[in-house]
Amino acid sequence: MNFLNGIAASSGIAIAKAYRLVEPDLTFTKKTVEDTGLEIERFQNALNTAKHELEQIRDRANIELGADKAAIFDAHLLVLSDPELISPIEDKIKTDKVNAEPALQETADMFISMFESMDNEYMKERAADIRDVTKRVLSHLLQVQMASPSMINEEVIVVAEDLTPSDTAQLNRQFVKGFTTDIGGRTSHSAIMARSMEIPAVVGTKKATDVIKNSDIVIVDGLKGEVHINPSQELIEDYKRVQQDFENQKAEWAKLVNEKSFSADGHHVELAANIGTPKDLKGVKANGGEGIGLYRTEFLYMGRDQLPTEEEQFESYKAVLEGMEGKPVVVRTLDIGGDKELPYLDLPKEMNPFLGFRAIRLCLEEQDLFRTQLRALLRSSVYGNLKIMFPMISTLQEFRSAKAVLEEERAALLSKGTRVAENIELGIMVEIPSTAVLADQFAKEVDFFSIGTNDLIQYTMAADRMNERVSYLYQPYNPAILRLIKMVIDAAHKEGKWAGMCGEMAGDELAIPILLGLGLDEFSMSATSILKARSQLRRLNKQEMEELAGKVLQMSTTEEVVEAVKAVTDL
Amino acid sequence: MNFLNGIAASSGIAIAKAYRLVEPDLTFTKKTVEDTGLEIERFQNALNTAKHELEQIRDRANIELGADKAAIFDAHLLVLSDPELISPIEDKIKTDKVNAEPALQETADMFISMFESMDNEYMKERAADIRDVTKRVLSHLLQVQMASPSMINEEVIVVAEDLTPSDTAQLNRQFVKGFTTDIGGRTSHSAIMARSMEIPAVVGTKKATDVIKNSDIVIVDGLKGEVHINPSQELIEDYKRVQQDFENQKAEWAKLVNEKSFSADGHHVELAANIGTPKDLKGVKANGGEGIGLYRTEFLYMGRDQLPTEEEQFESYKAVLEGMEGKPVVVRTLDIGGDKELPYLDLPKEMNPFLGFRAIRLCLEEQDLFRTQLRALLRSSVYGNLKIMFPMISTLQEFRSAKAVLEEERAALLSKGTRVAENIELGIMVEIPSTAVLADQFAKEVDFFSIGTNDLIQYTMAADRMNERVSYLYQPYNPAILRLIKMVIDAAHKEGKWAGMCGEMAGDELAIPILLGLGLDEFSMSATSILKARSQLRRLNKQEMEELAGKVLQMSTTEEVVEAVKAVTDL
Repeated sequence: MNFLNGIAASSGIAIAKAYRLVEPDLTFTKKTVEDTGLEIERFQNALNTAKHELEQIRDRANIELGADKAAIFDAHLLVLSDPELISPIEDKIKTDKVNAEPALQETADMFISMFESMDNEYMKERAADIRDVTKRVLSHLLQVQMASPSMINEEVIVVAEDLTPSDTAQLNRQFVKGFTTDIGGRTSHSAIMARSMEIPAVVGTKKATDVIKNSDIVIVDGLKGEVHINPSQELIEDYKRVQQDFENQKAEWAKLVNEKSFSADGHHVELAANIGTPKDLKGVKANGGEGIGLYRTEFLYMGRDQLPTEEEQFESYKAVLEGMEGKPVVVRTLDIGGDKELPYLDLPKEMNPFLGFRAIRLCLEEQDLFRTQLRALLRSSVYGNLKIMFPMISTLQEFRSAKAVLEEERAALLSKGTRVAENIELGIMVEIPSTAVLADQFAKEVDFFSIGTNDLIQYTMAADRMNERVSYLYQPYNPAILRLIKMVIDAAHKEGKWAGMCGEMAGDELAIPILLGLGLDEFSMSATSILKARSQLRRLNKQEMEELAGKVLQMSTTEEVVEAVKAVTDL
Repeated sequence: MNFLNGIAASSGIAIAKAYRLVEPDLTFTKKTVEDTGLEIERFQNALNTAKHELEQIRDRANIELGADKAAIFDAHLLVLSDPELISPIEDKIKTDKVNAEPALQETADMFISMFESMDNEYMKERAADIRDVTKRVLSHLLQVQMASPSMINEEVIVVAEDLTPSDTAQLNRQFVKGFTTDIGGRTSHSAIMARSMEIPAVVGTKKATDVIKNSDIVIVDGLKGEVHINPSQELIEDYKRVQQDFENQKAEWAKLVNEKSFSADGHHVELAANIGTPKDLKGVKANGGEGIGLYRTEFLYMGRDQLPTEEEQFESYKAVLEGMEGKPVVVRTLDIGGDKELPYLDLPKEMNPFLGFRAIRLCLEEQDLFRTQLRALLRSSVYGNLKIMFPMISTLQEFRSAKAVLEEERAALLSKGTRVAENIELGIMVEIPSTAVLADQFAKEVDFFSIGTNDLIQYTMAADRMNERVSYLYQPYNPAILRLIKMVIDAAHKEGKWAGMCGEMAGDELAIPILLGLGLDEFSMSATSILKARSQLRRLNKQEMEELAGKVLQMSTTEEVVEAVKAVTDL
């Protein structure tokens, strides 16, 4: 097979050789050994090679990713030097007269299950360290290659089943030219990361790791969602031209960086960016973002072993507000729980985490956590144009409760003489169907809506967007979804409020014509999608799009809607 | 503590002593024993007592529940007689000089993990058998009492954390006067079972098993959702009066068994029943059901080790159709997957099963399964008034695909000369928000709607109704839910179709006034709720309820709606 179809997750063309980021086969057979001294030596050699390799990775990570990301490898090195783990392995080789592989595995398993059974997050992490290190030493005993994203030092296309956040954190932009995965969709973590890193990517190919071997030459076509394996020289030349065309188009778009976003008939909308950390501001500016439509504050809480302090949060919010120089910044309060876990928050395992105890539901119960964040936000408000947004609101009571907590904190700060901006707009994510259906009631009390389409679609269609078997039901253009969006926009406008969108749909070229027609005021997307969207908007006529929107709302299927959009646009 | 608050899951009053259906404490300490012969004897005694007990349970189950339900206990007895399991335990006592408890547990654990690691459902069930049997023998070694629902032989209130389907199958109606559980809500399995068995029940008390001891005298107030523990004689007398009043009221309701269901101003609606098996027809008739609004066909597929044949299904459908003597019978095609698993269907584990691959999604992919059921349904159609309903429809394409498969099977049967009724109505469950929002489009193609509120509410509010931490968001009276229901009813009427409801809400006295006002045509509920609902309807004026419905649709919270209903009714 030399061709795979997948989902175009991040646009652009990449051509390079494949680097498989997959778990190697670490199976072994237990054998009796006579010369146990020799076997112990073999074990020690593997141990030393693993140490040497880890030191290299650690040093590289230190330079490229920073000391905090490199610390994990120090922990691994510590395990490898721990006589409490190493001596029993050597003893086992000697006493049981077995080869090093089972001696290592069995001893490690014992420690792992011991640590895992402890009701202590720190100890559980030690179990994970031992598991990782065991794999590394095993790979050297078996002389198979372990994949290490941080060890990549030439231009490659990464091929993986899926990419975890920690994988992507270790990828070096300079060398990773593109990637392709077996699973995932447009809204999966790896797809979002690819867009933010501007690396062409095709996800959900189902069998990239089955079909592609190390060092195969691979073309990743992130425009059409295609992957070519060991292509002909002719095809490579064709793709080099497509690549050049795409670069030229990007250069055209780049000219719009300082322009406002107007439709062909002069209707202005705001094109804003979704960000995760203050570091993302660079990309927002480079792509001409007119504001921040969604600042996901979860990243402040993740990848650490305790809650961020009020001061740490304050500094982050202040940095973003100052960096945006008076442009609007919508900060979403903590959206944690469900699939997003924090090691230091002991949340119950749930059968359906997407329908569970998360976001505002959790914040209203864990009020210390919530109040700390609100104080940090209120204090930062004097440094820019802050708007606060609550996630996962499903009832008006929740909004009223959250607002009451905010007002208490505001009053407390003011009474201590702390400065707080006046008129901070207070809005909600509309990502739960009940809230869209009742938007007219909400609009009387909130200052703005931001439609979170990723969740809104999955709840409205009752289909987990991460679940491959039902991903065909993740239908942004389904008329039911479009009707809910209309309800929200109309409700906002009736009360003189504004409505934005911060889901993936806001940057989708097939959705933009409809959303313009429905009257959406603010489109918030990956920074790297802004210029393309601005270019598209300039070619669209709002009045025509209103007509289009009116028509598609009366259609019955996604297919009809897509066809109708294509018929009146150049898509 | 002598009082607990919970959720009134099944109405009525029960007063009896408590029977705790909880796992006993089976922890033990490992000890060295000198006289291993004596220890082996102690083990053999426990083994024999366990065998004797299992034989009793088996014989009782045989009589009361039938041979198929009793077979599990034969499997358990087989395990206890297996020398492959028993000898190693005795050897271990002898060789390791340990007491019987660890010898039993460790040997059993070895077999359990061996069987569980096999990729074979049969072997995995053997692992479960060994686990159950080990517990039983341990309980005799430790001389603690194991709870056995089938061994209850005096009047009791069952107290449990939750009741599994297999627990409830073993409960003897004659002796179990009521029950109370720690977890669960009005729509949990145990609550639905309680209503169908007409056993008073209070669920979700959070701490019934903490607080109630064996043989405590307990009052279960299934009307108010209260549990009293060791009440005063005075309170018992009070409750006996309430119990008598309730019996009198039921006698009043019983007079309505042959009446039609009319509102005070003469508007007729249909009060139908939800059933699971042909056996439930008895209850439907005793309670004056005007039809079957939901025949859940899952039970045909559950509790067995292979798919039911077309013939078996045909016989069940025929029995229900004939039994209802021409009254309407709405059969829902298989709604499996998600939380409802079948041992012989290898379904993937999902992160969010409620948002996963289930019901029509699965049937459209596993077409053999689906076609077998459709053929059985079509063949049965000549024996009564059959209507077929597809579950979990979220897009029109799904309905069209399902209908196409049905039409193919109909054509195939007709071409073979098999008789099939003409004009079988074909409808859908409306339990996914997208379908409610797009009901006007669906109404052009389906013959009827049946609103499945249990799922519709959980998706619309994005709150797993089984998850205690978000159960406060399971809000049937939330104006957003009421608006979706209105969309569905209006859409049906506009096309001259009918709209029913088969969720718990249809039998809820607070919802009935609103649903009448919204124009719902058919209310399908637990058979035991029908007479009460009929009695309530006779007191309601449809025109007044239309006014009420109009008002509540413009409200913003559940609390306002409940207040408004109470203000215009006698609730």
